[in-house]
Amino acid sequence: MALIDLSRQVALGVDIGGTNTKYGLVNHRGEILEKGNLKTDDFPEVQDFINALYDKVSPLIMKYCGQRHFDGIGVGAPNANYFTGTIEQAPNLHWKGVVPFARLMTEKFEVPCKMTNDANAAALGEMMFGAARGMKDFIMITLGTGVGSGIMSNGQLIYGHDGFAGELGHTIVKPGGRKHWSTGSEGSLEAYASATGITITAKKMRAEFPNSMLNNYLEEDINSKVVYECATKGDPTAIEVFRYTGQKLGEALANFVMFSSPEAILLFGGVIKAGDFILKPAKLHMERNLFPIFRNKVKLVFSELDEADAAILGASALVWENESPGFRKY
Amino acid sequence: MALIDLSRQVALGVDIGGTNTKYGLVNHRGEILEKGNLKTDDFPEVQDFINALYDKVSPLIMKYCGQRHFDGIGVGAPNANYFTGTIEQAPNLHWKGVVPFARLMTEKFEVPCKMTNDANAAALGEMMFGAARGMKDFIMITLGTGVGSGIMSNGQLIYGHDGFAGELGHTIVKPGGRKHWSTGSEGSLEAYASATGITITAKKMRAEFPNSMLNNYLEEDINSKVVYECATKGDPTAIEVFRYTGQKLGEALANFVMFSSPEAILLFGGVIKAGDFILKPAKLHMERNLFPIFRNKVKLVFSELDEADAAILGASALVWENESPGFRKY
Repeated sequence: MALIDLSRQVALGVDIGGTNTKYGLVNHRGEILEKGNLKTDDFPEVQDFINALYDKVSPLIMKYCGQRHFDGIGVGAPNANYFTGTIEQAPNLHWKGVVPFARLMTEKFEVPCKMTNDANAAALGEMMFGAARGMKDFIMITLGTGVGSGIMSNGQLIYGHDGFAGELGHTIVKPGGRKHWSTGSEGSLEAYASATGITITAKKMRAEFPNSMLNNYLEEDINSKVVYECATKGDPTAIEVFRYTGQKLGEALANFVMFSSPEAILLFGGVIKAGDFILKPAKLHMERNLFPIFRNKVKLVFSELDEADAAILGASALVWENESPGFRKY
Repeated sequence: MALIDLSRQVALGVDIGGTNTKYGLVNHRGEILEKGNLKTDDFPEVQDFINALYDKVSPLIMKYCGQRHFDGIGVGAPNANYFTGTIEQAPNLHWKGVVPFARLMTEKFEVPCKMTNDANAAALGEMMFGAARGMKDFIMITLGTGVGSGIMSNGQLIYGHDGFAGELGHTIVKPGGRKHWSTGSEGSLEAYASATGITITAKKMRAEFPNSMLNNYLEEDINSKVVYECATKGDPTAIEVFRYTGQKLGEALANFVMFSSPEAILLFGGVIKAGDFILKPAKLHMERNLFPIFRNKVKLVFSELDEADAAILGASALVWENESPGFRKY
């Protein structure tokens, strides 16, 4: 029996977002051999999307490894279910209902395909190639347009009974608080700590403080990037926007720590560009709300991976990881 | 090679509380062959406690199975650490600091000893012999003098990085809310949903409603049992005490569901005697705060096991379960 040269084996990592899809061919060392993207919303029909992806990727497979060394496909997508390989009721995708995405991919590419939600994929990427290397217990929080999460416990992603575990952005941090623009829930973490939530906070606070630099902008131009610029220029209102956001985030993180007692919490996504403006108050309010046995133990760190790369790497890592209990082959 | 007759194998389950310790010899079918107890607080020195336990238990071992068929000891105790077999800084025990309890037990009894905290032991008991039979993902909440929890994910207890995961009683349900009498935290689940919390709520509410039956009692006689008696007699204030408690509990449960997406939440402990007075509002407010994909999926049920038996059974189950990753033999 010939030994397989693992270094020649390649996986395809795909990160599907509402607007863009990014993909990359990845080897066993976590090196992205080549990457590309296509517009998700150009394809109202899922089969057309898969066909277009195949046309882009198959020449790369031939170039880098050939079908024989092509091990499989890992996909991160919103509302993707690890157990069933389906995308279910994703609000930001054209493909409605329950889409058997993994099965359709395998039929086209003739290799196994595994899926999970985008934040879980990023958590896997961090464990295998990023800031969480060597860790078995950590929580990944993505702070972007929304707030997502991936929870690693004992070296395994927590999928829960139905494959949808880890929706920490929708946990309530302030009962009866800010109404979420889409879910209608009151006081969820996402309503405060997402880029969208920061924009809402900024609009409220600049109305209270007429001298704030934030008032030099049109209402429609206010966003988390503008708040960051004003904060770096020393605007106290902009700094307070991040402090308040960090407080709400830190209070939520304390509850997460008391659930799964992780070694670290990794923060990821566009909002972390705010740096210490958000990290310091988050750390302060996390520690303040922790039960004593958990204090000064949990690292709160930013992701080390480039955002686009992390998603591709994490998705590709699905191909080589052990299958979690509950995984169903179709 | 002779086959081992599993039905003859016996384990000792021990449940250590601040005041009382209960123990039982348990066979593989989850039948308690004989049980007993001793006063924990009669023994300021841990070795004296272990010697006394040995003197009580060793005649039973000889009677039922003999040392050859005695497989081991499982212990549930406050602040017990599964990984290290130690009891650490337990506020309600005489034994201070870090006590190497499992090692001391093994030295005395000459069989392996495994430990976990009391709520985790109860969760194991429910999975093997109670309402969670066949479930791989569930959360156990114990509502007693305090609020404890055990979290089962993928058929394994979540221990976390340090062995202390699952302190859900200390998660904050109302930021800036009621100050906890012992930890000093503000607005924790335990401050509202424990028997102690219910007593505080009842004292506040009866002051607001002079006509309440609760005002027929002396201040020091108010407790959750009295509130239950008044509720069954139709006192609206007593009913409101449980409704408010159930609301706070339900809001917390919603957050727990969005973390680990369990098949069921099991409630356990003295407070569940309040029945539907607390279960109905808990269910209502859990569902109301859930992200849509989790709604109407999670069973909210009471434990099926007798309280004393559950702890003994759960502790004994440690002996026969697979060792979780991270378990360290000393």
